[in-house]
Amino acid sequence: MAPHGATASLLASLAVAKASLTLVPTLLMPAAIEIAPTLHGPAATSFETFASAVNDLQKKMIATAKLADPTASWTEDEHSRGRAVILEDGEIWEKGCISVTLIKDGELSAVRASTISGRTGTSIEAGSSYSACALSFVLHARSPRVPTLRGDVRVFVVGDDQWYGGGIDLTPTYVDEADCIHFHSKLAALCNTHGTPDTYATMKQTCDEYFYLPARAEHRGVGGVFFDDLKADWAPEFSRSLINLALDDDGPYMPIVRKHASCQYTDAEKKWQLLRRGRYIEFNLLYDRGVKFGLSPESVERVLVSSPPLVAFKYKAEPMAGTPEAETLAVLRHPRDWVKT
Amino acid sequence: MAPHGATASLLASLAVAKASLTLVPTLLMPAAIEIAPTLHGPAATSFETFASAVNDLQKKMIATAKLADPTASWTEDEHSRGRAVILEDGEIWEKGCISVTLIKDGELSAVRASTISGRTGTSIEAGSSYSACALSFVLHARSPRVPTLRGDVRVFVVGDDQWYGGGIDLTPTYVDEADCIHFHSKLAALCNTHGTPDTYATMKQTCDEYFYLPARAEHRGVGGVFFDDLKADWAPEFSRSLINLALDDDGPYMPIVRKHASCQYTDAEKKWQLLRRGRYIEFNLLYDRGVKFGLSPESVERVLVSSPPLVAFKYKAEPMAGTPEAETLAVLRHPRDWVKT
Repeated sequence: MAPHGATASLLASLAVAKASLTLVPTLLMPAAIEIAPTLHGPAATSFETFASAVNDLQKKMIATAKLADPTASWTEDEHSRGRAVILEDGEIWEKGCISVTLIKDGELSAVRASTISGRTGTSIEAGSSYSACALSFVLHARSPRVPTLRGDVRVFVVGDDQWYGGGIDLTPTYVDEADCIHFHSKLAALCNTHGTPDTYATMKQTCDEYFYLPARAEHRGVGGVFFDDLKADWAPEFSRSLINLALDDDGPYMPIVRKHASCQYTDAEKKWQLLRRGRYIEFNLLYDRGVKFGLSPESVERVLVSSPPLVAFKYKAEPMAGTPEAETLAVLRHPRDWVKT
Repeated sequence: MAPHGATASLLASLAVAKASLTLVPTLLMPAAIEIAPTLHGPAATSFETFASAVNDLQKKMIATAKLADPTASWTEDEHSRGRAVILEDGEIWEKGCISVTLIKDGELSAVRASTISGRTGTSIEAGSSYSACALSFVLHARSPRVPTLRGDVRVFVVGDDQWYGGGIDLTPTYVDEADCIHFHSKLAALCNTHGTPDTYATMKQTCDEYFYLPARAEHRGVGGVFFDDLKADWAPEFSRSLINLALDDDGPYMPIVRKHASCQYTDAEKKWQLLRRGRYIEFNLLYDRGVKFGLSPESVERVLVSSPPLVAFKYKAEPMAGTPEAETLAVLRHPRDWVKT
């Protein structure tokens, strides 16, 4: 089961959709981004193709992560709806997971069908058959110098309609401007290769808007890209490429890991990381749109596995002005355009 | 501002009720327990009396806690709606707070008025003036041998109507049967002194039902008493006595603290405590009825101050059968009647 953020929530909620009458017609995902020309192909076939690609991508990501951090221990958890693979106690990553979920021939509840119809402008009936597939991952770094990376891709198919969603975003403990420029540049380049001229800017904004804690007036991290309800003909290839790039040696993330992984850090810096992880939990449990109605006895561990391993909470832990911690908060409060578009 | 559980949530939500149109007609509190004969007195006066008592009780609790754990550092935070007093880094308690909230002449939103009318069977109009006062506290122990204690009392006044609510409950890392019997016996005795013959049993059941994580099928702790919408003539005195007893030398909690505070514990036991605290956070952020709509930029720290200081999350951290951890979980999954009634 896909365990992170919106993806985990969507799929967990779909997984219980048949059993539950309490689903509310809340949007599971950020507002649809602009929709490009529709691909009217054989949905089942392209679904199978995507599902197969996602399985391969999971294997590749796990192999890459094992190579990068051979000290981590791994738990592989096959279940009826996919395969959750959990990393713990590595030198680079303290906790993480890379999971695939596959739902075939699910049956849409009335509420869910109406929600999807409303969101996508299509007309989908209750009881319709759907399929969904997702890969999602999170990597919580041990060092406060190395950021957390989260990402996912998903496809949702009803009849001939299929929608793609996903994203990749970075959550540093300390904002490093060069890292942010590097990270966003790589994502912008990918968007420019596959999408339209405004794809990166739109997806960057959607990401900033989604990973936001309104009561803190803080964004969770420095963003990345996030998209949903995407029917563009380039959506499947873009989605696969995004995940393929995630842990690439020359991708958005691994150069940042290599740059910082062996840097020394202090106890005070580690403590600041644990406090920032408190915000990560706050976001996941309070704001992630689907967590609450995706939460069932079967899904709770798979939804909450994205939690960091160790987290601190402190009353009004506001950093002193002029400190690196305060500089980081300033960026989280006012997202920047890291890449000129 | 009262920072814990239902109380924090209620008061935080009331505090923003005027400003927000997004309040939903969710019950903030557990179902009303049986209502005894109403006290038709001068509500304003008894409100002032209760508010004054609550201020004195806060001072007394702080003095008692300082005496019991002189190494802790304290932060006193006066704000427009009361006084939050936070304890950190003590030898006995790693984090805690003892807070008072006072709202006078608030104005009820339409949604809120209709919710209260529905719950209490009264007819309260939008725009009615209300007052509310609460004391709430939580003490997160350092040692996994010493349980966490949480409690609150609150009064809510509209015109001549006043409703009392509150409770005290225990969240141990390891269930100790003798502790549970002691804790519940003291609360049962208090209920028997002030209430009716079924008061303890009703309040114990309300508490078990409220502090419950449905997706885990676990209760958060071993319970205690919890009550709401109580209009009995004994409600004010009972509420005050409950808080007065909370940290009493011979009360429900302090004998348990004295018994275990100097016991040795292992790293593995501390780790189990941190994992149980993960459930504490899960409850507070996912299930506490008012947290989400009580959450505003002004209230977020006061609501979330009840979070433990350090928390761990681990995928499927199910203890081995036959271990003390498994025995504790068995009790949390099937609440017991600790006191014969």
